[in-house]
This record gives sequence, C-alpha cells and structure tokens, in this order.
Amino acid sequence: RSLSTSARQSLKIGLIPADGIGKEVIPAAKAAIIAVGSDIPKPEFIDLVAGWECFTRTGVALPEETVEILKNECDCALFGSVSSPSRKVVGYSSPIVALRKKLDLYANIRPVTSVAAQSGQKPAVDLVVVRENTECLYVKEETLTVGENGKEARATRLITERASRRIGQMAFELAKSRPRKHLTIIHKSNVLSVTDGLFRETVRAVPSLPGVDGKYSDVTIAEQLVDSAVYRLFREPEIFDVMVAPNLYGDIISDAAAALVGSLGLIPSVNAGDNFVMGEPVHGSAPDIEGKGIANPLASIRSAALMLRRLDYTKAADRIDNAVDQVIREGRYLTPDLKGKSTTSEVLEAVLSKI
Amino acid sequence: RSLSTSARQSLKIGLIPADGIGKEVIPAAKAAIIAVGSDIPKPEFIDLVAGWECFTRTGVALPEETVEILKNECDCALFGSVSSPSRKVVGYSSPIVALRKKLDLYANIRPVTSVAAQSGQKPAVDLVVVRENTECLYVKEETLTVGENGKEARATRLITERASRRIGQMAFELAKSRPRKHLTIIHKSNVLSVTDGLFRETVRAVPSLPGVDGKYSDVTIAEQLVDSAVYRLFREPEIFDVMVAPNLYGDIISDAAAALVGSLGLIPSVNAGDNFVMGEPVHGSAPDIEGKGIANPLASIRSAALMLRRLDYTKAADRIDNAVDQVIREGRYLTPDLKGKSTTSEVLEAVLSKI
Ligand SMILES: CC(C)[C@H](C(=O)O)[C@@H](O)C(=O)O
Ligand SMILES: CC(C)[C@H](C(=O)O)[C@@H](O)C(=O)O
Repeated sequence: RSLSTSARQSLKIGLIPADGIGKEVIPAAKAAIIAVGSDIPKPEFIDLVAGWECFTRTGVALPEETVEILKNECDCALFGSVSSPSRKVVGYSSPIVALRKKLDLYANIRPVTSVAAQSGQKPAVDLVVVRENTECLYVKEETLTVGENGKEARATRLITERASRRIGQMAFELAKSRPRKHLTIIHKSNVLSVTDGLFRETVRAVPSLPGVDGKYSDVTIAEQLVDSAVYRLFREPEIFDVMVAPNLYGDIISDAAAALVGSLGLIPSVNAGDNFVMGEPVHGSAPDIEGKGIANPLASIRSAALMLRRLDYTKAADRIDNAVDQVIREGRYLTPDLKGKSTTSEVLEAVLSKI
Repeated sequence: RSLSTSARQSLKIGLIPADGIGKEVIPAAKAAIIAVGSDIPKPEFIDLVAGWECFTRTGVALPEETVEILKNECDCALFGSVSSPSRKVVGYSSPIVALRKKLDLYANIRPVTSVAAQSGQKPAVDLVVVRENTECLYVKEETLTVGENGKEARATRLITERASRRIGQMAFELAKSRPRKHLTIIHKSNVLSVTDGLFRETVRAVPSLPGVDGKYSDVTIAEQLVDSAVYRLFREPEIFDVMVAPNLYGDIISDAAAALVGSLGLIPSVNAGDNFVMGEPVHGSAPDIEGKGIANPLASIRSAALMLRRLDYTKAADRIDNAVDQVIREGRYLTPDLKGKSTTSEVLEAVLSKI
C-alpha cells in the first residue's frame, strides 16, 4: 500500500498502544481521528501489539506479525509508549527503537510550540526538532568483556553520510516551509570530530547537492554544540526554529524543549520515512500514573494530527490542532501535569466537542 | 609533590588560561587566591600554555612540558577554556580532554547553586553534577570508512567497571557530606543496556563494596534516564542533590543545570583525581565577547575556591565563596551575562574588597 492521498478509499491505521499510559492515550487519538469525519477517507483501525508487557506475556517485544501488518496493510500508524526494564533482560530490546529501523522511519519530527494566550498571537516557543532515527548509539552494537581491571563495555556510535544526508534534506525541507527558515545543526564535533564532523558537514552540504538548484538558498544555517544547545534552549528559545540532530542528542534536546512549554504531555511526534509515517507522543509510559485515568491525551491527539498532516490531510490536521489549541487556551479541561483537575476522557471530550 | 595540606611551605599552582576569555578570567582567579593571604601557604604561580591558539602558533595543542610541569612541580592548577575548530584539523585534539586523562582527573565536579536573596536562606537550586571524566565517547576512538553508500563514521563509547566504581565512590562520598544525602544516577540503560547498564549497576553496588561497611547507608539512591533528567531539571530542580553521570551526559546536564541559575558564567568545576585537582570554569572560550573585558570572572574565582576546598583549605575557600555570594546578592557589580554593566575587573575588585 502506498497509494497517494487522493486515491485512497479508506485509511488503514495501525494502533500500537504498547505499555502504561499508551493504552489510555492512543484510544483518545483514535477518537479524534474518527471525529474529523469526511475530511479523511474512512478510517479503519488495526489493533497491534508490542512492548514490555507483550514481552513478559509472550517472550517477544515486537512480534513479526505487527511489523508485517504495518508494512503490508497499513497506511500509517500510532504508537503509544513503552516501559523498559533498566537492567539487561535476555531477549528483550526496545520495540520502538526496532520499529523505527524496520520501517526505515529515519526521521523523528518533534514540533514544540507553546499555545499563545490568544488565537493569532505569536507563540513564545515555536521550534521543531528533527531527530535522526536509525543510527548513532541506537544501533545498539554493544559488547562486554572482562579484563584484569574488571568489566569493560563498549558501544558503537554509527554516523553515516547517507543517513545524515537524508535527515539533512528533511530538515532543510521543513525549514524552507516555515516563516523563519532557520536551521540549527546540533553536534559535538569539538570532541567527536569524525562522527559529528561527518554529520555536520553532510547536513551543511545539502544545499549544494546535485539537483537542489538553489532551493534552500533562503534557509539560514547555524550550529550549536549539544551542551550549549540545551543551555540556550532554556535561556533564549526564540533563537531556534528547526533543529537537526543525531539520534541521542535529538532525544535529549526534544525533552529539554518540552520542558519549556509546560509538559511532555503536550508534545507530539511523527516517525517518518519516505513511505510510512507513525505518530508517537514524546512522553513515556509513566508507570506512576498508569491506570488512574489522568494521562494527558493531547500529545497523542496532536501526534494523530501530525500524522494526517504528513499524509496531506491538511484540513483534518488543522481541525484537530485548532481544537487542541482552544482547549489549552481556555484552560478549563486540563490534566494534572498542566495543573488541571480533569481526567483523560474529560479532556478528550473537550477536544471532540471543538473538532 | 604530593605533600599533605599542612606540610606545604608553598602552594604551587599551574595556570593555563588557554583561549578566548580564559585569558581574562584566570588572572581574576589568581588575584582572588592571592587575596586570601595567610589562610593558604604562600602561592607560587606557574604560567603554562595549551589550547587552540597554542596549536596554531606551535603545532601542538598540549605541549609535553605543560603536562610534565603540572605532574612534577604543581600542587594544583587552574584551566581557562579552549576554542575548538569545528572541523577535523590534522594533529589537533582538545587539550582539556587530553589533560583530564593524562593527569587521571577522573571526576569533574560541578556544583550548581543559586544564591539566595538573603544570606542564610535556602538556595532554590542546590545540586552537584559528578561527571565521569576519562571515558564514554571522550575516549575519541573514531574511524572513517568509505563504503558503497558513502562515508561511514564510528566512535567507541567505553564504560568500564573500574571508572564507574571510582566515580560512584566519589559521588557517594559527596552525597554523604551534604545535608540531603541523595544521589541520582543518570543513564540511558533502556537503550544502552550493556554500557549504561554497567555504569548503573556498578554505581549502585558501591555501598556494598568490601570495606564500605554501611558508610553510605544514609544515602538515598534514585535514577533518571538522561532525557528525562534534563526535562526534570527544568521542571523540578529541587528533586536533585548529587547527580552522577557518564562523561557526555554529565557534560549536557551540567549545562542544563547552569541555565537554571542565570548564567554559565557562575558555574565552577574541579577536575579531580586521587592526587591532583584542577579548577576550571564550566563556560567556554566565548569568542563573541573575547577581548572586550566583560567576561564574568565569578566561575573562575569559584573554581579557585573549589580547588582550595578540595585541598582542605576550607577557610580560604569559604572566604572566597562568601565574597562571591555577597557580590551576587548585592547585584551592584555584575557583568552583562547577568544583566549587569560591570567589567571583569570591576567585578573582581568587588570580590577582592569582600575577601
Ligand atoms: C523509550 C526510548 C527508547 C525512546 C528513545 O530514546 O528514543 C524515548 O526516550 C523517546 O524519546 O522516544
Ligand atoms: C570543550 C569541551 C571539550 C568540554 C567538554 O565537552 O568536556 C566542555 O564542553 C566542558 O564541559 O568542559
């Protein structure tokens, strides 16, 4: 299935709530998608499993079947969140990290935008983290040896020209589409001159690739060392527009940026490749509030909108996003992470009533 | 030279201002040390070179002589800051990273404390980052190959039991000495189960090492994934007391913590080993303000105090720290990074007048 937007009779959406509050917020995202009605082809949802609970039940964290159905039957998907054991558990490996690679979802796009007090005003924070999603330390090539001084563990950090180039292209494309057209490359090439040097140079070279033909000539380019980027995010977030980063730095700076807008419970993302897109809230499985019915559904609802936007269902995406913005702006129905008293379903109802 | 504190006739201090504003703030730290007079043995300063400017002048970023004099003649040292080329320059490698390894300064201790409005009040932020200083990606083992898909770069991330244990011991020791006695281990073992798994488990095992004998039984232990740690640092910094982290995470979280207290220009550190200590402001060489005479000298002055404190010159360290706190609290003489209008030397004079 890789029909174009207009040719689809139905929109097949894989749902992988996975663990913890994932199981509470993905149903909310589903309801928001249903609510946009005829602005998208008739949605068909396919329930799929993966995660730590799946592993403890079946011995497999990411069943082959889940991957096959996503690849062969779905147009897109929504992923919840995974719980992970903090110790090495034989046979277990993070299913979200594996899924990103298996579906070649090479970009993790994380818009972090505050909602202005009044509709139409400029938000105080308005940036997008474009995180490389397939390599860096996430290749998970680790070894353990025992020497005379005890155990020694090594991990490989892989940075390739190919992955850096395609994430760079995605980032330039995104920067070009935004009013400020500004791209900041995040790296640590003062220490990692070879790996981060390659990332930095490859991204910088995107505008001069054959065929690009001046397309990005209006995008301004800056760079920041990752430590300094985190510092400046907190001190002067307005200097950032699009930030492109290798995998681990992207993981960290998107959480840093999330802190600026009040709650991780607001931050959506999509894992995007050339042929597939999977929405995913940036927050984790939050075992501390699991099952209490108070998880913030807005990150997942916004992830659904972001997913639809990437599939060019712009009107549907706008309707969902505007409804979420209104709910935040009114401030009547908010979950405890935003200092409100509402439940997941009260917030969802508020959003649905405005879609 | 590894005489005990009381046996020293003089205190030999190596000064390595290195690049950029390092050359403006290290002289201020020197002046503060001189000002404490008889609370320390007569200080003797030895001027040493290293850095990017040294490299462009001589072809060597860290001269052998600098290392030898530090090792054989100095009791301690103060390092400024280095500028780094962002591209790979043949023969150049960061001298500060090299110095930490050559002197086996395995811990980078970075206290981040806000100054309460009134003397005696509890500061809003009061934490210490204990950063492992010799391994992780900082081993700088990087390779570059060219395959069919273009260039591929790899870096090794090394985590050893030995280094994790000694940094863990340092962190428990520090946590024990503080009122809250709380230690948070920073890692990403949900992805890096082998390397960060080893770090986490080795630090956790410190209280049960042979010979420890319940010494740390009053230290409470928590852990945070590095992404979540950065998020929570900004949302609820009061949950942290001592944070222990592998090298790169420590680099990032100390900058994040610095943002909380107003300016990197306030944050001191020491690079500490079993036999040597080297103070170093956490800020960089700040090429944008170099030579303008407005660099904040307080991070370096506090680094001098921290260095003296580690050598057990507690009274001298207290005098310097109290003087700095007073200057910040009064708010009359502050550099532009703290929204003041004073120069480096005006701030220094203010501190000296209170020592
Ligand atoms: C759960 C974990 C593997 C994941 C990551 O590090 O990518 C999470 O932190 C995220 O940001 O999506
Ligand atoms: C200059 C650089 C090599 C250094 C580091 O990453 O350790 C700096 O950021 C620091 O924190 O001291």
